[in-house]
Amino acid sequence: MTTADSLEDYLARRKVLVEEALESFLAPEAGAPERLTAAVRYSLFAGGKRLRPILCLAAAEAVGGVWEEALPCACALEMIHTYSLIHDDLPAMDNDDYRRGKPTNHVVFGEGMAILAGDALLTEAFHLLARPEFMTAVAPARRLMVIQLVARAAGMTGMVGGQVLDVLGEGERLALDVLMDMHQRKTGAMLTVSVVTGAVIAGAGEAEIAVMERYGRQIGLAFQIADDILNVTGDSAVMGKSTGSDASRGKTTFPTILGLEASRAQLAALVSGAAAEVKRLGRRAEPLVRIAEYIMERNA
Amino acid sequence: MTTADSLEDYLARRKVLVEEALESFLAPEAGAPERLTAAVRYSLFAGGKRLRPILCLAAAEAVGGVWEEALPCACALEMIHTYSLIHDDLPAMDNDDYRRGKPTNHVVFGEGMAILAGDALLTEAFHLLARPEFMTAVAPARRLMVIQLVARAAGMTGMVGGQVLDVLGEGERLALDVLMDMHQRKTGAMLTVSVVTGAVIAGAGEAEIAVMERYGRQIGLAFQIADDILNVTGDSAVMGKSTGSDASRGKTTFPTILGLEASRAQLAALVSGAAAEVKRLGRRAEPLVRIAEYIMERNA
Repeated sequence: MTTADSLEDYLARRKVLVEEALESFLAPEAGAPERLTAAVRYSLFAGGKRLRPILCLAAAEAVGGVWEEALPCACALEMIHTYSLIHDDLPAMDNDDYRRGKPTNHVVFGEGMAILAGDALLTEAFHLLARPEFMTAVAPARRLMVIQLVARAAGMTGMVGGQVLDVLGEGERLALDVLMDMHQRKTGAMLTVSVVTGAVIAGAGEAEIAVMERYGRQIGLAFQIADDILNVTGDSAVMGKSTGSDASRGKTTFPTILGLEASRAQLAALVSGAAAEVKRLGRRAEPLVRIAEYIMERNA
Repeated sequence: MTTADSLEDYLARRKVLVEEALESFLAPEAGAPERLTAAVRYSLFAGGKRLRPILCLAAAEAVGGVWEEALPCACALEMIHTYSLIHDDLPAMDNDDYRRGKPTNHVVFGEGMAILAGDALLTEAFHLLARPEFMTAVAPARRLMVIQLVARAAGMTGMVGGQVLDVLGEGERLALDVLMDMHQRKTGAMLTVSVVTGAVIAGAGEAEIAVMERYGRQIGLAFQIADDILNVTGDSAVMGKSTGSDASRGKTTFPTILGLEASRAQLAALVSGAAAEVKRLGRRAEPLVRIAEYIMERNA
């Protein structure tokens, strides 16, 4: 990324890279039932921003690596993200009929197939992380570390745990620390592991990995606060779902606890904290700085 | 296992080993929401036979390894098996209220929590396979191979794919080759990978791994045929679910295509074929021989 580049161009180019890779990594799964492949592809290519894979590639470059080596991991992260959206949207969970302006997976394919499509994406993500033909320049011990970190971020103490806390907390008024813990697990853990694994794949040392952890935690929380603010103030056409939906469900959000002004201040502090972290890595970390700022600008 | 040992004693002792290990491996997941842990434990300790982990340990020993080294992998296989049962029982899939004589996970914890408990078990299985403190005597490249094999067996071309074929085929009359393909994916792939991973962890060469593949494919199919026969002829108290349930759902089974007698003959041929495979490995493979025979005896 040159300084003349706009972030939009950078994100658009990276999105293409990620989507081409997702296409190629899914292709060898020929032999899967057609209907399952269709259900998986429907959600995987439903127009996501590809933020997690883009973060993973940017983190690899920020510590001096090449994005190519991190690409399979980047795609695995997107597959796990997509599975979580499919399952979260189910009638037994958030019961959402639309996501990104399109009918959700279970509306199109039925509940049973949507559950299985999610299960397939989660499993294939780990398959991708372990396949011998990819990430050949990364030492096997480092690849195991990547798998362990991703599984921890996605599992009982991470994303799944966060979703459980979210489901159990619905309709209850949560304290700020409880709300933050829930989001740190539900969204923050996977955003954090996106930058951490990118750095690990690129051969980062402990200090650089710690920078990525602190960056990830801050943008993770910032991302959720921005989302909460947008839910109150945003345009439903931009969001692809109805605004004000949190309030109508009785969800505790940052604005309901802190108010809009203090939520905006907290968002700004997190974004500048995250940017300051990665600025230590020098100019190579410029995309990570700009992505942190972009999270806040979504909320303009 | 000495020749004086009964298989029942052997299976009972191994079951204790596996359950103690499952307890210890789940313990570090403190930090997960209590309700999620309760839902996961409810199904994980619901009285399964632990056939997959026992096969994994027995395969490690059959090629000259020690069972201790294969124990984390054995437990991961049981976690994946348990997740698949929880999701298969959901109202959107088989809609079963009872399993092994106990109310199913979603009946006790609700559908949303049952979906998440399954997601958690699948994810934690991969976490266990990758954790640095386990399987330390196994080379990282071999551990990656284990993860890749397990993910492939559980994924779109394996178990999840098989479940999709099962759901789509319900109410239709399937041809024998289609029925066999469905079961090979749905049940056979995970049984096969149980013995294959045990052998890989123990350092087996290609010839021994190929023996395990052929053994696994045959017992996998035998297991399903025995199950189908038991569903027609069995005692519902023994099975923990109602007999005749396949017929009432219009499921194609081996007895509906071949008749009971020919199904029994096919079962016997598969079991003796599987036993013949592992007998090449010598006396260390005795438990695998006896487990193959046991699959047929269930059906006495």
